[in-house]
Amino acid sequence: MSLKSSLCLLAAAFVFPAWPQPPQGPRTVSPEVHSDGRITFRLRGPEAQSVVLNAPWAGGEIPLVKGEDGVWSITIGPVEPDILDYTYRIDGVRTIDPHNPRVKLWLGGAASLVEVPAEAPTYYDVQDVPHGDLHVHWFRSSASNRPRRVFVYTPPGYAASGERLYPVLYLLHGAGDDESTWSEVGRAPLILDNLIAAGKVEPMIVVMPNGHPVRFGEASRGTGNRNTELFVDELVKDVIPLIESRYRVHKDRRKRAIAGLSMGGGQSLAAGLSRAELFAYVGAFSSAAPDPVEDAAVKGFTADPRKTNRETALLWIAVGEKDFLLKRNQVFVEHLKEHGIRHTYLETPGDHSWPVWRRYLRDFTPLLFR
Amino acid sequence: MSLKSSLCLLAAAFVFPAWPQPPQGPRTVSPEVHSDGRITFRLRGPEAQSVVLNAPWAGGEIPLVKGEDGVWSITIGPVEPDILDYTYRIDGVRTIDPHNPRVKLWLGGAASLVEVPAEAPTYYDVQDVPHGDLHVHWFRSSASNRPRRVFVYTPPGYAASGERLYPVLYLLHGAGDDESTWSEVGRAPLILDNLIAAGKVEPMIVVMPNGHPVRFGEASRGTGNRNTELFVDELVKDVIPLIESRYRVHKDRRKRAIAGLSMGGGQSLAAGLSRAELFAYVGAFSSAAPDPVEDAAVKGFTADPRKTNRETALLWIAVGEKDFLLKRNQVFVEHLKEHGIRHTYLETPGDHSWPVWRRYLRDFTPLLFR
Repeated sequence: MSLKSSLCLLAAAFVFPAWPQPPQGPRTVSPEVHSDGRITFRLRGPEAQSVVLNAPWAGGEIPLVKGEDGVWSITIGPVEPDILDYTYRIDGVRTIDPHNPRVKLWLGGAASLVEVPAEAPTYYDVQDVPHGDLHVHWFRSSASNRPRRVFVYTPPGYAASGERLYPVLYLLHGAGDDESTWSEVGRAPLILDNLIAAGKVEPMIVVMPNGHPVRFGEASRGTGNRNTELFVDELVKDVIPLIESRYRVHKDRRKRAIAGLSMGGGQSLAAGLSRAELFAYVGAFSSAAPDPVEDAAVKGFTADPRKTNRETALLWIAVGEKDFLLKRNQVFVEHLKEHGIRHTYLETPGDHSWPVWRRYLRDFTPLLFR
Repeated sequence: MSLKSSLCLLAAAFVFPAWPQPPQGPRTVSPEVHSDGRITFRLRGPEAQSVVLNAPWAGGEIPLVKGEDGVWSITIGPVEPDILDYTYRIDGVRTIDPHNPRVKLWLGGAASLVEVPAEAPTYYDVQDVPHGDLHVHWFRSSASNRPRRVFVYTPPGYAASGERLYPVLYLLHGAGDDESTWSEVGRAPLILDNLIAAGKVEPMIVVMPNGHPVRFGEASRGTGNRNTELFVDELVKDVIPLIESRYRVHKDRRKRAIAGLSMGGGQSLAAGLSRAELFAYVGAFSSAAPDPVEDAAVKGFTADPRKTNRETALLWIAVGEKDFLLKRNQVFVEHLKEHGIRHTYLETPGDHSWPVWRRYLRDFTPLLFR
């Protein structure tokens, strides 16, 4: 859906007469992205007492100013090209921008999305290159005895590639996400399409499972570890066999990678480091890194550093300088250093958000299967 | 995502320590569906002056009442089992329920979703039956010279069915939707899974293209017809050839159906009635029925009623008694009657909303390819 899709609702109401009346009365355009990268946010709220923009990437909370027509507005920026999320606080209630149809779904609350386009199409844009396909499968989890979904990206040319086998990246989402988020918000398929077209990345299959075998909301204290255990169990017993029966993939650990963000970064470390027989490549993006001493899932991997170093083709850890998990990643990496575990560690600009994770996917995948 | 997924955010913040703070401070649960089908809606808004629930299925606008703790609430119902959408009006601003992570995306504005579960799993629920797969393909439209997406459902057993050919239903969305809406909101894949498992529906491939070759928002007066023309053009030149090259499908018009809702219903009538060489089955759900006299796309189909009746295996038209398009459908059907065109016409309970369209899909698909 284009950013411009929010324009001209009233005009559209004429030309698509099937369309019910737009909900807001007179048409208010928000957000409006200017050609110089400034962004104007608006809200029609003649009865509202206060309207505040919440956009951590723009410095936090910024009040909108009420106009005589009852439309609140504020212009910020210029902002560097990216896809960014924001919310409003309307008389104290935090919610989305009701004029903007682009919404990021998140289990902890939706947010509105604004895209500042790059001058030329960038690494996450739809470009005129061959596109892979996305597939959604249901399966019954033996770990949780529930029907579950998994998203699978196949690279351009997969269907016509005969007997060719592909390497696989298992790509895990965060605690507020689900199995669709890496595709819909993270744009993993488009990022892979563009990197493959540029020859920077080995054509690979990307598997995006759901990270909540314990239902989100049925959590109780201690469930985080239990959830990770069940997740790894389901991955090994159900997801990998499903992929290996349905797709032409290498079954060699040197052709299998696992990476994830936030909660999924913790899961990728737990699975990658405890099941080295399965994964040679491990990526942790802004991860909820496990406690390297206490956590049962990972505490064994430093016992024999030479073995770990021999088996691990890549242990890639990155976190934003403004991420609330920065310290936790530093502690984890310190432990790696103490035990002489070979790894890559990056502290990058950014906080705990999708612009960072899209960039990490772009930077991590070229290192795989080489 | 379960309805219960909105529970226990604070608990989750403990067990998923990667998770940023929930946005609303103290946890407010909304909506809460009671076992008797009543629903309590809540909103934490100590500073708000008025909070109104907008739920046409519950009678329209219903004020919430402010409690001493600053939480507004109202209990309604009992409500019949269904998946229903609603919005809030907070100090005059219409928006989603910020406590509810289930959101229906719509180009004209998002809405919150509430699900009243049936006692036993119903026709749109995930049941313990074989599941089909969903596939997402990009292609370049020759009609609009843009990259476009199409969603494709393949029925259970498709991958393992050797040389078997399948019939195809082209299933079109409404003006505020996109190519994902029939899957994500309409639950078409689950409805088909359940009907196929029950032996009520012929296993078929369901193709869900995007109905906006003219970008939503780039519309101007008269673009509705132009959009339909381009849509049919793209369907014929790009989508059908893509499907027939990538999937094992019958290329026989008697094994091809087209149906859609609202704007997509108008498109299905335009494509189905003007291109009878392609489609033997046509369905129009709450459709923006074309003007049967003036509209170029359909005015020819009454010229030779005997030919039309011979070629059309099914012309199925249904609309809700409270739908704002009721009259428009009545006019169209009157024209069919005048010209002796065989058809099925149903006026059903309901308005212009997804509960109606899910039921229409359930009732229409058993009639296909028999």
